[in-house]
Amino acid sequence: MARPLRHPTRDQIELPLVLDCLSDPIRLAIVYQLAQHQRDGTELCCGDFNELSGKSNLAYHFTKLRDAGLMQTRIVGTNRLMKLRREDLDTRFPGLIDAVIKSAARDAGRLSLVAECEIADTD
Amino acid sequence: MARPLRHPTRDQIELPLVLDCLSDPIRLAIVYQLAQHQRDGTELCCGDFNELSGKSNLAYHFTKLRDAGLMQTRIVGTNRLMKLRREDLDTRFPGLIDAVIKSAARDAGRLSLVAECEIADTD
Repeated sequence: MARPLRHPTRDQIELPLVLDCLSDPIRLAIVYQLAQHQRDGTELCCGDFNELSGKSNLAYHFTKLRDAGLMQTRIVGTNRLMKLRREDLDTRFPGLIDAVIKSAARDAGRLSLVAECEIADTD
Repeated sequence: MARPLRHPTRDQIELPLVLDCLSDPIRLAIVYQLAQHQRDGTELCCGDFNELSGKSNLAYHFTKLRDAGLMQTRIVGTNRLMKLRREDLDTRFPGLIDAVIKSAARDAGRLSLVAECEIADTD
């Protein structure tokens, strides 16, 4: 059986690390896409982000997001299922993720990777 | 006469650059301190941040903050007077700076530089 992945506890989530994660356009696009799908409780798998970057680069960003406490990952068979730690983030930093997601949505046109996510979403 | 410093226009302020600026604990502390003083319209000068870091390191962070559009700097004699571009930031990214400042205040104890700011404030 796969070993569960290490995640920081809610209290271990640190503001500078969260902001650093969100400052990268690819990680911002991943978080944005996770937030869009969170509404209906869907977890996403690695393949859902293939439009954003290559596999190994995405794996690097997934690890950064998990280590910073932005994302929960669970291993099911050969898949990794991912979701945003929305409740933990909203408790630690009220309003922050919401403001970042809304700002990203407003700037979707210039944050080209986010725009690609949105196009991919509507397929 | 000193040449006015270059600042990005409101529309040129970019989300990834703003988040990158805020992800650095010293820059976050500078922004936090500027936000505290903004309420009464006070501009701050370089010396007001001496508790945070050395002069040349602070100069580097001031430039990063100005270039990213977080801070307005004007030269008066031998002084540089600085204020947060709160209205521009709130227009571009509604709620973002407010959420970051509140999150920093909640974590003041563990963001040691922010805590130093607060101590300096009460002097």
